[in-house]
Amino acid sequence: MARIAYVDGRFLPISARAVAIEDRGLQFAHGVYEVIKAVDGRLLDLDRHLDRLERSLAAIACPPPMGRAALTLLLEELLRRNRLTEAMVYLQVSRGTAPRNHVWAEDLEPNLVVTVRPARFPTEAELARGVAVITLPDERWARCDVKSIALLPNVLAKQKAAAAGCREAWLVDREGLVTEGASSNAWIVDRDGVLRTRPLGPAILGGVTRDVVLELARTAQIPVAERPFSVEEAYAAREAFLTSTTSLVLPVTEIDGRPVANGRPGATTRRLGALYAGRCGLAAPVDR
Amino acid sequence: MARIAYVDGRFLPISARAVAIEDRGLQFAHGVYEVIKAVDGRLLDLDRHLDRLERSLAAIACPPPMGRAALTLLLEELLRRNRLTEAMVYLQVSRGTAPRNHVWAEDLEPNLVVTVRPARFPTEAELARGVAVITLPDERWARCDVKSIALLPNVLAKQKAAAAGCREAWLVDREGLVTEGASSNAWIVDRDGVLRTRPLGPAILGGVTRDVVLELARTAQIPVAERPFSVEEAYAAREAFLTSTTSLVLPVTEIDGRPVANGRPGATTRRLGALYAGRCGLAAPVDR
Repeated sequence: MARIAYVDGRFLPISARAVAIEDRGLQFAHGVYEVIKAVDGRLLDLDRHLDRLERSLAAIACPPPMGRAALTLLLEELLRRNRLTEAMVYLQVSRGTAPRNHVWAEDLEPNLVVTVRPARFPTEAELARGVAVITLPDERWARCDVKSIALLPNVLAKQKAAAAGCREAWLVDREGLVTEGASSNAWIVDRDGVLRTRPLGPAILGGVTRDVVLELARTAQIPVAERPFSVEEAYAAREAFLTSTTSLVLPVTEIDGRPVANGRPGATTRRLGALYAGRCGLAAPVDR
Repeated sequence: MARIAYVDGRFLPISARAVAIEDRGLQFAHGVYEVIKAVDGRLLDLDRHLDRLERSLAAIACPPPMGRAALTLLLEELLRRNRLTEAMVYLQVSRGTAPRNHVWAEDLEPNLVVTVRPARFPTEAELARGVAVITLPDERWARCDVKSIALLPNVLAKQKAAAAGCREAWLVDREGLVTEGASSNAWIVDRDGVLRTRPLGPAILGGVTRDVVLELARTAQIPVAERPFSVEEAYAAREAFLTSTTSLVLPVTEIDGRPVANGRPGATTRRLGALYAGRCGLAAPVDR
């Protein structure tokens, strides 16, 4: 079945040419987005995603395209029309359509696109083996806390990672500290056994999965520190993993061609993966 | 007459919804663009624009959508269909259409959009009075030499400038040096009478108008240095101006609310403006 998308009030085949030529998202990357997963037809952590969407919209001076209740109904309707219960929902708001000009009118209506696709979570083999990452200089702009569609540096980094046989690129700031992955947050268990990830700030996106995993770790009394780590600390880590709505808790077992510890997913990583999967109503990784 | 646009092989009204939902330009800002002016039906500095387009495309790992000869014919045809002889041509290439995934297939076909509009060069009054700019931190990515559509920081800066009653934002790096404007290059005539603009590098776009004005200045034996200048040097400058394909040579007579010198366009600025206008076949600013 061809996927059905929603574009500015209409449901259309995903292949439709449905976006305006002068959409500001297309001409200026003047837009923001969310990716939300559905499990058993339920939109997970929807409030957190919609909270973040509102923050992103405010940062690009864009009003919400509709209220939360209407938006929620729309996402659910799109899942139904696509007959999907385990799915990834992609939601994008751009700053509207107008003759190309950097400056825009405040009363310009935003544009909304929503698409869905079957969920593709990490496979059992990926979870058992872990994935490889490379490190690359972080060339992104100064406001990576905004979930904007200005993802050109991200896609270029991901393509470099893929060309090196890696799943993800971990981006490194001028001080040699890892900010985050090109589409995920980065974590290690350091040599002292402390779970580490970069604190919130303009250099990283505040991942919804990141927040949830932090909560799960604290509840499980795993020692946690929101403190940046260097590439060298990552090389020397006991464990490493990445998190995102799509990747869940994905073990990282190789960084720049070097095995992390013994090259196999660590105990804390597996534990958090199981806790996170359980919370989402997904079968635990070991079972899938 | 409604404007006619070109989108992937078809001529369409500019208001058409003609762009794919999963265009990588829209979802990832994975695209580049050029703005070219036409005077008397002639595309000015076309070779320089197409050279830069090819460099930008290479930087985002995108093949050209068609050869130069075909592209040139297309631009000319679009001008004819719009019955325009003095016009701005906007040309955008994105990395194609595919189900959303950061990584892309190398054989994915690029997408091409071209639009035109009547030229709106600076008015006589603007050239006589000059315009105001504000300075803002440069929050853009590390590869501003690539003319990408990831312009979110640029539009946010321009909107801030407009809100402050200014034409342009001059962006300032961590060292307090001006990089360029949000959509133009920045110039001063410093206290020693030297024409200064930032040298080429990843922090600025190599403007076509910038290159031409540098050549005109050298030919006219105006002392020139491609050397960065600080905000303080801009405040203390004898003259200031900005250049772009659309803005030509536009005097800057106020920076952050302070008049530049006596607050009126300087002699070197006016001279370069006249030389540039003459070279483009435009009436000299004073005459328009």
